[in-house]
Amino acid sequence: MRNELKSLFEPESIAIIGCSPDKKKIGGRPLDYLLKYGFLGSIFPVNPNYEIIEDMQCYETIMHVPSEIDLAIIALPQKLVLHTFLACIKKNVKSVVIFSAGFSELGEDGKKDQEQITALAKKHHIRVLGPNCLGLFNSSKRMYATFSTILENEEPLPKGKIGFVSQSGAFGSHVFTLARQHHIGFSHFVATGNESDIDVADCIEYLVHDDKTSVIACYLEGTKDGKKLINMFKLAAQKKKPIVLLKVGKSDVGMQAAMSHTGSMVGSDSVYDTIFKQYGVYRAETIDEFIDVANAFAQLPRMKGDRVAIFTVSGGVGIMLSDQVIENGLTLPETPKEVQRHLKSIIPIAGVKNPLDTTAQVSYMPTLLEDFMKAVLESGQYDAAIVFLGFSGLKPDSLATKLTSLMHMKQQFPDIPCVMVTLCNPEAKKLIHESGMVLNEDPTRAVKILSAVNELRKSKNHLEEMSADEGVRVPLDRINQFISYSSKKALTEFQSKQIVSHYKIPITVEQLALSPTEAVESANSIGYPVVLKGMSPQILHKTEKGLVQLNINSDQEVKDVFNHLKTIIQNEEEATFDGVLIQEMINDHSIEMYVGAKRDPIFGQMILVGLGGIFIEVFKDVSMRKAPVSPKVAKEMVEELKASQILKGFRGKTQYDVDSLCNLISQFSFVISMQEGVLEEVDLNPIMVFEGRKGVKVADALMKLS
Amino acid sequence: MRNELKSLFEPESIAIIGCSPDKKKIGGRPLDYLLKYGFLGSIFPVNPNYEIIEDMQCYETIMHVPSEIDLAIIALPQKLVLHTFLACIKKNVKSVVIFSAGFSELGEDGKKDQEQITALAKKHHIRVLGPNCLGLFNSSKRMYATFSTILENEEPLPKGKIGFVSQSGAFGSHVFTLARQHHIGFSHFVATGNESDIDVADCIEYLVHDDKTSVIACYLEGTKDGKKLINMFKLAAQKKKPIVLLKVGKSDVGMQAAMSHTGSMVGSDSVYDTIFKQYGVYRAETIDEFIDVANAFAQLPRMKGDRVAIFTVSGGVGIMLSDQVIENGLTLPETPKEVQRHLKSIIPIAGVKNPLDTTAQVSYMPTLLEDFMKAVLESGQYDAAIVFLGFSGLKPDSLATKLTSLMHMKQQFPDIPCVMVTLCNPEAKKLIHESGMVLNEDPTRAVKILSAVNELRKSKNHLEEMSADEGVRVPLDRINQFISYSSKKALTEFQSKQIVSHYKIPITVEQLALSPTEAVESANSIGYPVVLKGMSPQILHKTEKGLVQLNINSDQEVKDVFNHLKTIIQNEEEATFDGVLIQEMINDHSIEMYVGAKRDPIFGQMILVGLGGIFIEVFKDVSMRKAPVSPKVAKEMVEELKASQILKGFRGKTQYDVDSLCNLISQFSFVISMQEGVLEEVDLNPIMVFEGRKGVKVADALMKLS
Repeated sequence: MRNELKSLFEPESIAIIGCSPDKKKIGGRPLDYLLKYGFLGSIFPVNPNYEIIEDMQCYETIMHVPSEIDLAIIALPQKLVLHTFLACIKKNVKSVVIFSAGFSELGEDGKKDQEQITALAKKHHIRVLGPNCLGLFNSSKRMYATFSTILENEEPLPKGKIGFVSQSGAFGSHVFTLARQHHIGFSHFVATGNESDIDVADCIEYLVHDDKTSVIACYLEGTKDGKKLINMFKLAAQKKKPIVLLKVGKSDVGMQAAMSHTGSMVGSDSVYDTIFKQYGVYRAETIDEFIDVANAFAQLPRMKGDRVAIFTVSGGVGIMLSDQVIENGLTLPETPKEVQRHLKSIIPIAGVKNPLDTTAQVSYMPTLLEDFMKAVLESGQYDAAIVFLGFSGLKPDSLATKLTSLMHMKQQFPDIPCVMVTLCNPEAKKLIHESGMVLNEDPTRAVKILSAVNELRKSKNHLEEMSADEGVRVPLDRINQFISYSSKKALTEFQSKQIVSHYKIPITVEQLALSPTEAVESANSIGYPVVLKGMSPQILHKTEKGLVQLNINSDQEVKDVFNHLKTIIQNEEEATFDGVLIQEMINDHSIEMYVGAKRDPIFGQMILVGLGGIFIEVFKDVSMRKAPVSPKVAKEMVEELKASQILKGFRGKTQYDVDSLCNLISQFSFVISMQEGVLEEVDLNPIMVFEGRKGVKVADALMKLS
Repeated sequence: MRNELKSLFEPESIAIIGCSPDKKKIGGRPLDYLLKYGFLGSIFPVNPNYEIIEDMQCYETIMHVPSEIDLAIIALPQKLVLHTFLACIKKNVKSVVIFSAGFSELGEDGKKDQEQITALAKKHHIRVLGPNCLGLFNSSKRMYATFSTILENEEPLPKGKIGFVSQSGAFGSHVFTLARQHHIGFSHFVATGNESDIDVADCIEYLVHDDKTSVIACYLEGTKDGKKLINMFKLAAQKKKPIVLLKVGKSDVGMQAAMSHTGSMVGSDSVYDTIFKQYGVYRAETIDEFIDVANAFAQLPRMKGDRVAIFTVSGGVGIMLSDQVIENGLTLPETPKEVQRHLKSIIPIAGVKNPLDTTAQVSYMPTLLEDFMKAVLESGQYDAAIVFLGFSGLKPDSLATKLTSLMHMKQQFPDIPCVMVTLCNPEAKKLIHESGMVLNEDPTRAVKILSAVNELRKSKNHLEEMSADEGVRVPLDRINQFISYSSKKALTEFQSKQIVSHYKIPITVEQLALSPTEAVESANSIGYPVVLKGMSPQILHKTEKGLVQLNINSDQEVKDVFNHLKTIIQNEEEATFDGVLIQEMINDHSIEMYVGAKRDPIFGQMILVGLGGIFIEVFKDVSMRKAPVSPKVAKEMVEELKASQILKGFRGKTQYDVDSLCNLISQFSFVISMQEGVLEEVDLNPIMVFEGRKGVKVADALMKLS
């Protein structure tokens, strides 16, 4: 995979098919950029209408080029693309970028043409970026295979360590331009367009292995291949390359818009969100955050803990920052007492507890900022710093003094990430960037940056724990019984629980009775009181139909209720009677939980857990992961729930058997993963979780089949 | 009140005590600014060390000034302030700004001096701003009584309609400077410092009545007088002047920092938050949002509904904006079909459903943006618009064309607020500001702006409804029985419920029994089964002590349980036995709710509602208001709860008597308001809410006294 993409990202020879001498045209821009930025490989313009372009020989067709070609750019009208692509194959071109639009994004005809490109690419091992894409560039190779107008300016491009993959060319161009205003550069920029062949996951794989890239930034609308994307997330985590991602299409309206924009299916956003968290991908919510965090990951050292020191010239902003630091899951430990005394001796009116308020005196005492920072950071009690300097950035003298102090601190405490906050004009912004400091003009965004660096630390720990935890997989067989039901739409409670029970998941004591006599026998063997439930695979919600009868205490009652339940089912249209389930009546103190499985069309089996009953829906208190999960991750899921306070013994009340619940979740998650294609949806609801270490029992279950 | 503050905000004569010819000194800056910006009234420098400053006669003391003085600025060392203030009083100066620090913010001595100032100000009807304050300015009067360095620049100040009150000078200066970068101006800026006399509420009152101010922006750390602040919020709402407020001190650490910064008490942030919502004050969370929203309220027309049209040059950004519009409670209706057809006829590749994606073609077809906007807005289906133009702002030609289109649209649709989004350089920013368009560089912030304008619309409706609703107040007497208990710390359930019952709030059928015989009599008159509860004012949590016994079915059981409960209480140290409560056992289907009262030290009685039991604590699902509230507002409270889904009949299940619950909440809120000083905390928990229209009953209650 990697070698194939090398021809795209690091070509030594490029043919531009549809090349133009007009630098404003789509076929003219790549040549202009390649020449302007000094591409070191060979360039071959192709266009039958010209013999020479920019002093270079222009070829009639790709076949006429007297050399091997790593990358061909196709900048032609839609109707010429397929023909030209076939020529590229014939010429043994290794990879192709297709700028041309008019494919799957425009309807059925275009879709067919695109499918042909996909099939040909696969067959002939040629890699294709696009069609309908803005192209790509690779800064270190001075390789600019794009027609984006963002490179028209004469200004030099800032260098950068961020590799940027975007499913939208316009979005990518906007981000690129905004980043340039902040002097933030990219190692690579690639717009994947219609993704007939190369998709976002492929580009991530390339960037993970690229030395010039230390952070991967992604704009995503959706993916067709969830598993491939997850594998690349895992790879990035292994190689310690953080991914910052902005995914759109969260709301129904947004999802609709995304579907019509990409012309492809877009899965549930909450599943994407789960996947990102589970595999340590940082999800940004706004463009500002996207750039801020990508830049911070590229520039700042990693945090070792969550303790922040705030240095401020405004008490008010210090308070606001304190609030936001806490809200973002960071801590703000008080300055050690001896440091406080020392600082008070320098300037008595200062705030010295953290936030550290040097007051406006910072403008009259040039060493004040450095004195404060040094004393505080030297204590070893802090993992990060925010320095709020008001509008110092607008006053060159004031800025110079402070920047010098900050540079000293950066040298002295290279492992402590520090974000500088000040209002700036463009000159100041440039100066600060060149000093290597991470700058933001808004204090809240600075907190968000440290919060992201802290999340990175936590997800790194988390991923390490997860991989250490992988050995717990339980051996599972795939049972035939399971498959034989697959013609039906759903299984009854009895069948569903037989299956989970087969996989060592504890269920209520119960027997299926097909006659009143059998029912009485079962009731006596289980022991009174019992519960009777009418079984029919067509009736998914038994309670609503009166098919659950609690607290049955005698043989006669059992017989009567059996007949009653059978009648109810027989009176339902198209419902078949599968018998009556005789079940123990649970009276032990317990709490009802829900564990479920849902098959996502993109990412496969997801596992969910929450409080049983209506609370999961009312309070949306549910946690989700891609299955399977280890008991450790299951515990993490349970602890994410607000309801976990109840399980753990709220305010000194009863504690419930969380460990057994977590074992159940993990075991069940392996079951559903193994039956990937068979199960559409499973509800174990309720699961009775008993006190102390008394275990769990599945009291009801429902399996819907694919 | 208003006339007194006029001397401060609109003085015709200003004395500067401690005036200096050095423009960098605290006593020099106000003179510099007043002269530079052309103050039209009289200026009197006062300083015994000079005879002439800036060609003006300088007076030895304030007493030597040969004219009446509206405003005296005191820019002297702390130890001279009190003496000078007394001189000002003698001279009949109407108002004073005290720049000098060293008062309550620095400890006990300073606090005493400040208290003297407060007392003198009150006695002599002289108004005081400060001490420890940066001063104020009034743009339209060219009156600059401040030593802030923000006015040092020679640039002209942008004009503005925002009146800005800040409890922090440094915070205020920062906001002022940031706003100036965006060409946003202020009608007034006032920093209230230590608030010995004039506080934020006073300034709001002045600004509400000021013609030049259309929006009031506030930075707040806390207030000593909650009722005064509420009254000013109400006044602003009546006069339709929106307030945008940034309050800090949310987290415990932030609150600590705020207390040490202001030297005064800071109440619970959640109560402040409630007050802001209840009285229509928009709370901003970040400095960017604070400025964005204040500017939008000053510049944009009010929204008539929540329907937004998104115009974009990037499909991706369009999707992101769609998500964010929905997340912010706005709607995004699809473009009418005939408009879609029309737009497709102009440009077939466009997205025409909303978001409206003109694509990059907008750069090649100069009328495209206007064609799209006109067709869509003319449909009458939209209340607001966002126009995302990528980085057009960086290309002068492109910007000029688009700005012209937007200006046309603004003329044609003056009632539709429109936010323009594009990356800008400083020149473009200036140009756009001068055109009168509201601009933001970040699309997410643009959505937040429209969301704020929409909130303003909703809170306006809401406040109108509230005032229309004020007639429902129930006449209440203040009962003596209530007062007689006030020596105790808490009342028993029986006493508490007697009181609420006296105020027509329905409670369970119950009688207090002092002997086993009485208990049996009561049980028989109520009817079996009954509940027995042991009463002791020292035991607040009966269940934990085993003092609640359910489902008692016979005379003998009643006697036995009576004696058992009495023994439990007698065995508790320092607990007095107040009898046993015999109560009906409620078996009717019902849901348990919680209604409570908490006295906030700043704002007084607050009323809370939530689900009964532990859910209120586990899920933090509670809504709060300042008491009293009408049944209408009570309903709004209930509907804010996630649990309201259960009350209203979740998924077709039973509906409960919400109206009776709302009547109870309202009635109870008037009870607690009337007993303002007596009650510290009240829990009605649980309240049984019955099905359909079967009413409510308070099943347990606890009153803690102040």
